Amino acid sequence: MSDIEIAQQASMRPIIDLAGEKFGIPAEHLDPYGHYKAKISLEYVNSLTDKTDGKLILVTAISPTPAGEGKTTTTVGLGDALSRLGKKTIICLREPSLGPCFGVKGGAAGGGYAQVVPMEDINLHFTGDFHAVGVAHNLLSALIDNHINHGNKLDIDPRRIQWKRVIDMNDRALRKITIGQGGPANGYLREDGFDIVVASEVMAILCLATSRADLKERLGRIVIGYKSDKITPVYASDLKAHGAMAAILKDAIKPNLVQTLENNLAIIHGGPFANIAHGCNTVTATKTALKLADYAVTEAGFGADLGAEKFLDIKCRMSGLKPSAVVLVATVRALKFHGGVAKDDLNQENLAALEKGFANLERHLHNITQHYGLPCVVSINHFTFDTDAEIALLQNKCESLGVKCVVAKHWAHGGAGAEQLAQEILHIVDNREPGFSYVYDNELPLWNKIEAIATKLYGAAKISASPKILAEIKALQAHYGHFPICMAKTQMSFSTNPNAKGAPSDHIVEINEVRLANGAGFIVAIAGDMMTMPGLPKVPAAERIDISDDGVISGLF
Amino acid sequence: MSDIEIAQQASMRPIIDLAGEKFGIPAEHLDPYGHYKAKISLEYVNSLTDKTDGKLILVTAISPTPAGEGKTTTTVGLGDALSRLGKKTIICLREPSLGPCFGVKGGAAGGGYAQVVPMEDINLHFTGDFHAVGVAHNLLSALIDNHINHGNKLDIDPRRIQWKRVIDMNDRALRKITIGQGGPANGYLREDGFDIVVASEVMAILCLATSRADLKERLGRIVIGYKSDKITPVYASDLKAHGAMAAILKDAIKPNLVQTLENNLAIIHGGPFANIAHGCNTVTATKTALKLADYAVTEAGFGADLGAEKFLDIKCRMSGLKPSAVVLVATVRALKFHGGVAKDDLNQENLAALEKGFANLERHLHNITQHYGLPCVVSINHFTFDTDAEIALLQNKCESLGVKCVVAKHWAHGGAGAEQLAQEILHIVDNREPGFSYVYDNELPLWNKIEAIATKLYGAAKISASPKILAEIKALQAHYGHFPICMAKTQMSFSTNPNAKGAPSDHIVEINEVRLANGAGFIVAIAGDMMTMPGLPKVPAAERIDISDDGVISGLF
Repeated sequence: MSDIEIAQQASMRPIIDLAGEKFGIPAEHLDPYGHYKAKISLEYVNSLTDKTDGKLILVTAISPTPAGEGKTTTTVGLGDALSRLGKKTIICLREPSLGPCFGVKGGAAGGGYAQVVPMEDINLHFTGDFHAVGVAHNLLSALIDNHINHGNKLDIDPRRIQWKRVIDMNDRALRKITIGQGGPANGYLREDGFDIVVASEVMAILCLATSRADLKERLGRIVIGYKSDKITPVYASDLKAHGAMAAILKDAIKPNLVQTLENNLAIIHGGPFANIAHGCNTVTATKTALKLADYAVTEAGFGADLGAEKFLDIKCRMSGLKPSAVVLVATVRALKFHGGVAKDDLNQENLAALEKGFANLERHLHNITQHYGLPCVVSINHFTFDTDAEIALLQNKCESLGVKCVVAKHWAHGGAGAEQLAQEILHIVDNREPGFSYVYDNELPLWNKIEAIATKLYGAAKISASPKILAEIKALQAHYGHFPICMAKTQMSFSTNPNAKGAPSDHIVEINEVRLANGAGFIVAIAGDMMTMPGLPKVPAAERIDISDDGVISGLF
Repeated sequence: MSDIEIAQQASMRPIIDLAGEKFGIPAEHLDPYGHYKAKISLEYVNSLTDKTDGKLILVTAISPTPAGEGKTTTTVGLGDALSRLGKKTIICLREPSLGPCFGVKGGAAGGGYAQVVPMEDINLHFTGDFHAVGVAHNLLSALIDNHINHGNKLDIDPRRIQWKRVIDMNDRALRKITIGQGGPANGYLREDGFDIVVASEVMAILCLATSRADLKERLGRIVIGYKSDKITPVYASDLKAHGAMAAILKDAIKPNLVQTLENNLAIIHGGPFANIAHGCNTVTATKTALKLADYAVTEAGFGADLGAEKFLDIKCRMSGLKPSAVVLVATVRALKFHGGVAKDDLNQENLAALEKGFANLERHLHNITQHYGLPCVVSINHFTFDTDAEIALLQNKCESLGVKCVVAKHWAHGGAGAEQLAQEILHIVDNREPGFSYVYDNELPLWNKIEAIATKLYGAAKISASPKILAEIKALQAHYGHFPICMAKTQMSFSTNPNAKGAPSDHIVEINEVRLANGAGFIVAIAGDMMTMPGLPKVPAAERIDISDDGVISGLF
C-alpha cells in the first residue's frame, strides 16, 4: 500500500477529544480546523508557563542522499513507541511546504506505518499557516514598491532592496524577474525575484517568536534594504508594515495539533528552509510540547551538520531549550551511497562500501557527542534489502565508538517497530540532566563563529572569502556581531561540494555571500549557490495527483 | 463605534449549534474552522436535492459612486429582518478579497449593525478558499513554463500564452513583468503578469461548478494559450494539471457558514471579480441556501447593469436558478452624485440634483422590470444627512413608476431597521411564481448578444469593434458561439466613460478585447481598460491595521 492509502485507512480520533483525554487541553482553547486538526490558543500556551518541562529528544540524520534516510518517520515511530511504553509523549514536526508536493517528492508527513494524519490536509494547505506567511511577506514587498511609486519619502535605494517576493510553488521562471513594466501606472522598473515561502524571513521569525509582541517587534526589525547613502537600513517598521503583518499571522502563530496513525498527539508548526534559515519547527510548538508531555521528540532539517547545528546553536540558544539526547538516523542504503555505491546498486550487500560510508555517520556522531556534549543513539531505519551482515557491521562499529545502534522498523510496524530505540533513549534521558555546549560563543566575532562551525563540524581546514565579502562581514560585525550564524551550504556533504560524500577533510569553505536576517536575529553565511526557489521536474508529481468525484485524493506520496 | 468594534462586541453563537438548531444540519456534516466558521460537506449538500426550493431574492444597486451604496449591508439587513418576521432565511454573500483590505477600502463584511461575523476572520484568510484558488491557478502557470523548459512537447507558442499568474495582494509592480531571467536554469524569457486572485478563471470556475466532477472537467477545459499553428488551443488537461488543481480545491468547493450580528446564518462562498468575471457567490452556496431556507437573499457585484445582468444571464442561466424579486439599493447621496454634485457637497440637501440623478435609478429599474420581467423594490440605505424632502421626492418618483421605495435603517438598527423592506419583499415573492426572461437568447451569435446587452441595458446606440477584434469574435463564434457573454466595462457608468453619470444614452460601446474563459464557459467582452491588479494608495490601510499583544485586531474597516 502507498503512504496515502495507509493514511486514508487510519482510524482517526476527533482531535478535540484526543487532546482532552490525553493531555487535559480544554476544548475552548482549541480552534478546530475540521474534526482532525486544531490550533491551540496562545492563552492556553501561556497558562502552562509554570509547569515543569519534559525531556527533549532531537532526531537528526547523516548527510542526506538520494537513497532517503527517514528522519520524519523515525520521529513519528519513536514518539509512538514511547507512547506504547506508557510514556506521556508529544512529537513536534515542521509543516510541509505545498509547492514541493507537486514536484518530485510528493508529501512530507512521514511514511509507511509511521505517519501523521490527516495526510492530505497536512500536505495541502493544512491550517493555512504558510499562506499567511506568504501574504505577510508579500504585503511588505508591495508596500516597498508602493512607497517608491508614491515619492519614496524614505529614500529607499531601489538597487539595494533585498526583500524579494514569495510564493508556495516550485516555479523556476519566477527566480529572476523584472517588475514594474508597462509604464508609469505600474511603478518603477527593477529586478526582483520570488523565493519559495519557506525561504521567507517571515517564516524564520514566526518560528523563533515567543509571543505576539515579540513577533510584531521582530517583523518591524526586518531590514528590507538600504537608503541611497548605501548604509542606512530601511526597516519594515519604517514602512509601518509590521502591525498588519502581525495581524495577518494572527492564527499562524498558534501551534497546530494533529495525531499519528496510532492516535498519539503531534504538534506540527512552522517550517523554515534548512539552508538559508534554521530549519526547525516553532519555539512555541516545542515549548508547548515540553509543558504538556514528559517527553517531546522533535526533528531538525537536513543532516546533523546543518539541522542539528542550527537547532542547537540558533533555536536552543535563543529560546533556552535544552535537549537531553539525540537520535542519529541512518540507513544501510544511504551509508553505502556515502561509500561510493551508485544509486541503482544500493540494494546489493556491500560491506566494504558500508564501512567506507560509515565515515559520514562517524563524523556526525563525533560532532554530537564531542562538540555538543550530547548523548546519542544511532537508529538504523530498516529496509527489507538490508542484510544481517550489514546490520552487524554497523552495530559493531558503533559499539566500538561507545554508541548504541538499534534497528528500527517503524515504517513497517509503527511504534512497535521502534520500541528498542525508545528503550535506549529512555535509559539515557532518564539518567542525565538536560543540557549541552554550543559550538561557538555568542561573543566571538562573526568570522570566527563561521570558522568554528566549518573547522569543528565540517572538518574544514579553514574558511575563506573575497575582500568584498570580508568587508561586508566587517560592516555587519559593528551592529550585529552578537548574532548567531545561519550557515547555508549544500546538505549533501560536509564540504561545499555536494559530490564529496563520506567525511571529507581539510577542505576550504568559501563564503560567497552574507545576508542579514535582522528580524530572525541571525546572519546567513552562504557557501555555494543556494536554491531558494526549486523547479519542477520533467514529469511533475502534479500530473498524477487527483481527486475522485467523492473527494478521495490520490497520487500524493 | 467603528465596524470592527461593533463586530468585536457581537455575541456570536457556536456555528455548529446554530446550524443544528436553526436548520437541522448535523454536526458531522460541518467542518468547523474555529468555533464560528464551518464548511458544509458536499455530501450533505447533495442529500438536499429532493427538497423544495425556497424563494430567491437578489440585491443589486444603482451604478456605484464614491459615496457608497450599501449592497452588502442591505443583504444582511434584509436577511435579519426576514428572520425577525419569523421567516426561515439564509443570506448568501461573496467572500472578500484579502489584498484590497490593505489598500483603500478595508474589510468587506457589511457595516454598522448589518454585518457578518467573525469580521476579522472573514476579511483575513477566512477558510482559505482564496489561497486555494491562487495555488491551483499558479500550479497551472508553473506547469506551463515547466513544460516549455523541458522541451515543449505540446508545441505551446510562448508568445500566445494567455494564462497569467495570480496573487491576493494589491501590487501594481506585478502587473507587467518579465519572467525566466537569469540564464538557462530559469527557463525561457517571456512577458507575463500577475492578476489579483479574484480575477482568476479558477475563481469563476469554482463559483459555477456544480460538483467535484464538474469542477475538474471545467478546470481541464481551461485554454491556457495556443500552439505554434496559432489556432489549436492548449488545454489545462493537455498539461495533466486539472486533477491536482481539483485536489487543491478539495475544501474550497465546500460552502462556508457564518452568522450575522443577529445570529442568523450566512453562507459566504466564492468571490469572482465583477468585471472580467461574473461577480456572484457560488452556485453551490445559493442552491444550498434555497434548499435549507424558505428565503435566500443574495447579492451581485457592482451595479445592476453589470452585477444583476451577469447574475441573471450567466449564473442563473447556467444553474437554472430562478429569482423571485429584486431589491435595488440606492442612497440619496449617491443619486445626488449621479446628478452632478461633488463628493464633498453630498451631505447638503439638493432636490434638483437628486431628481437629475434619479435617471440612473430609473434606468436600472426599467432594465430589471421590463427587460428581465422581475418585480423590484427600491431600498434607500438611510444616512443621517438625508432630508425628509429628499426621501419624499424619491418615493414619489418611484411610486409614479409603480415601484415601492422604502427607507432602510439596518446600518443603524440591524434587522429591525429593514422590516418594512422585508414586508414589501414578502408581499411580492409570496404572490408570484419565480422566474424571469433573459436579455438575450443563447442561440444568438456572440456579436448580437453583446449588442443586446449594450443597447437594451446600457442605452447604447450601437456597439463597435476594430477589424482585428471582429475577426477574433468571428473565430470564437465557430466553437464557442453558444457561450453567454461576460461584459467587462466600467462599473461607474452605463457607458464606457466612467465620468458619464446618470443615464447616458445613444453612446457607442467599443469592444476592444475578447477573451475565452472556456472553463467558466463564457466569453469576456471588454470595453475599455480593465484593471485586474489594483494598486495601493499613498497611505495604505495596511499602515493602520494592527494586532494587540492579546490578539485583538484594529484598523480593519
